[in-house]
Amino acid sequence: MRKLADRLASITSFHVMVLMEQAQQLEMQGRDIIHLEVGEPDFPTPENVVTAGVRAMEAGKTRYTTALGLPALREAIAGFYQNRFGVAVPASRILITPGASGALGLLNTLLFNPGDGVLLTDPGYPCNDNFLRQVGALPQRIPVGAETGYQLSAPLVREHWRDHTRAAWLASPSNPTGTLIPMAEMSAIKQEVDAREGALLVDEIYHNLVYDSEPETVLSLPDEQDSLFVINSFSKYFNMTGWRLGWLVAPQQHVSDLEKLAQNYYLAAPTIAQHAALEAFSPESIALYEERRGIMGRRRDFLLERLPRLGISIPCVPQGAFYLYCDVSAITDDSFAFCQQLLNGCGVAVTPGIDFGEHQAKRYIRIAYSANMERLQEAIDRIGQFIGR
Amino acid sequence: MRKLADRLASITSFHVMVLMEQAQQLEMQGRDIIHLEVGEPDFPTPENVVTAGVRAMEAGKTRYTTALGLPALREAIAGFYQNRFGVAVPASRILITPGASGALGLLNTLLFNPGDGVLLTDPGYPCNDNFLRQVGALPQRIPVGAETGYQLSAPLVREHWRDHTRAAWLASPSNPTGTLIPMAEMSAIKQEVDAREGALLVDEIYHNLVYDSEPETVLSLPDEQDSLFVINSFSKYFNMTGWRLGWLVAPQQHVSDLEKLAQNYYLAAPTIAQHAALEAFSPESIALYEERRGIMGRRRDFLLERLPRLGISIPCVPQGAFYLYCDVSAITDDSFAFCQQLLNGCGVAVTPGIDFGEHQAKRYIRIAYSANMERLQEAIDRIGQFIGR
Repeated sequence: MRKLADRLASITSFHVMVLMEQAQQLEMQGRDIIHLEVGEPDFPTPENVVTAGVRAMEAGKTRYTTALGLPALREAIAGFYQNRFGVAVPASRILITPGASGALGLLNTLLFNPGDGVLLTDPGYPCNDNFLRQVGALPQRIPVGAETGYQLSAPLVREHWRDHTRAAWLASPSNPTGTLIPMAEMSAIKQEVDAREGALLVDEIYHNLVYDSEPETVLSLPDEQDSLFVINSFSKYFNMTGWRLGWLVAPQQHVSDLEKLAQNYYLAAPTIAQHAALEAFSPESIALYEERRGIMGRRRDFLLERLPRLGISIPCVPQGAFYLYCDVSAITDDSFAFCQQLLNGCGVAVTPGIDFGEHQAKRYIRIAYSANMERLQEAIDRIGQFIGR
Repeated sequence: MRKLADRLASITSFHVMVLMEQAQQLEMQGRDIIHLEVGEPDFPTPENVVTAGVRAMEAGKTRYTTALGLPALREAIAGFYQNRFGVAVPASRILITPGASGALGLLNTLLFNPGDGVLLTDPGYPCNDNFLRQVGALPQRIPVGAETGYQLSAPLVREHWRDHTRAAWLASPSNPTGTLIPMAEMSAIKQEVDAREGALLVDEIYHNLVYDSEPETVLSLPDEQDSLFVINSFSKYFNMTGWRLGWLVAPQQHVSDLEKLAQNYYLAAPTIAQHAALEAFSPESIALYEERRGIMGRRRDFLLERLPRLGISIPCVPQGAFYLYCDVSAITDDSFAFCQQLLNGCGVAVTPGIDFGEHQAKRYIRIAYSANMERLQEAIDRIGQFIGR
């Protein structure tokens, strides 16, 4: 066996993949599986967005765009920040990326030397750690619980910042917990980071998918130190997963370096997706997306009411994304084994806590409400029957 | 100014971008610019391939695929290797990637620790170096000239391999030189690499675009040591640049690790592009691609005949890609300045040698024949007039 890069050993794989393979096998045997494990909205891309993509293709718009992306799309995103949030983000600060993944690669390559530390939450999105490891940087996972909404706070940043720390990674709404960071806390965190001349990286991939309030963006905070980097995506709110399109908002002073990296590392985001995404900001599309946001909210409310009756508790009400981070310690002391039992026993697929870190991971599962109400009802019935509640 | 990662200083930018901006400004002033600087075929994506993409979109195939890519597409590529080259490459060894760039990222992350060395040619595709720098590996650029067809050879590999060297990067056909590595030499190089337990990475991005012979693939060589990794792309021969789709052929034993990396670093290649690409292997498409290969070959022959009359020599006849690597030392001692003069003086845009390395870079320019014969004729006339020949 060839000797591989050392980092391979520390790059985590997704335990949910084992479950998804098992689910597939069960389905081939004719079993009906309810999929609540997937981080993908069940809504199709809106028809008018698809049509815009088709028109672009038929017009021969299939060649490379510039590395920064279509100027019209960068302007459309700037317009969205302005019109919806009243925040001025010049198009010149916006880079179109191949998925939010493309933005993650750029940011880590731009900012971190080997040995640099970055604060993240445990639990959190596991790929962030692995992007850091790609460039030799060190994830500093901070155990967080329901008491801070599974989020970093200004005191936590102060407490855990070390000499080698260079940045804090936040996600609001968060995957896997669905929780937000209140804007006042975000501002306090930013002050802590700025006082240490660090960078603040904010994942707004689930931006706009919030249910108890109107969405906000960290870009509304002043950024005199040019320390704020925000990633976003067309995958979730805009229902464009397979199109692989995201964006990055960076301080103006770093755009030319990021452009250089983009030219080297991916050339440009997919052209057809960029043309289709222009239509995602039309009033017609936004109206549909808002309707779908309402549907997601009602699913969440349903599960928030029903899961606790089964002994599955949700210690912290998630205000966003489409995830519930559920404590199953009243039922099991090994949530991964429980996921396998649920799948095999009643055909409901969910994601184990160990896919998001180590801190109390065996207590938790992530349930994605990316299935319709009828299926969610069915899932609740099956789980109840299976665990005898 | 924020302190950035140290690697930023060593990541090269593209000097041709300066020329492309100048070209754009000239065009806005009404000047007609002949673009021979772009690494993109001028042929549109074939209509039937576009139609396959449209059908996929209309059928709602816009969600994530698995990280390895559509099974049918992996099978289609395996079939292409079998039918066209008589080479058995099981689909299980083929990963669909977001452009060849996606494959480059995976490979470097899989194979190289910080400080590991990789042999490459100078001149060569500059992004390869920058992918290595992303993970802290060290490009070992070996100066090559016309005497080896601007390619590595077995003796060069033997001579330049050091204790820290882990791999050799080859490209056949090469960008920027358009030259091939004869299969016997490729085999000899592989033996040198294998004897040192290294990896052999081969860029076949311009595969099939050869003009004096039928295309071959390095995958026809035996690989008992599982040392061979091959990247390819739908961009060039298949005329699908903006779709951002490529593939990687890896030894079977490494596929599961590569899959883990893909899940972390890009999730999946663009879905619509994958469905469209299925049609790229149809007899109808291949017939069109072969017709276009003929056109490219005639353009090459035309320039090979005419450029030397202008004092622009092509020391080594390029058998592939769509590039001529031209020695302009009879006209200038600074090829970048000459590029600027050509652009401003007669509206012909070409790429300076310094974009591909340091070795004799000021002697060379790269001319891409991705423009039709009429435009090439016009370019020759303009250059001749400009330099007074």
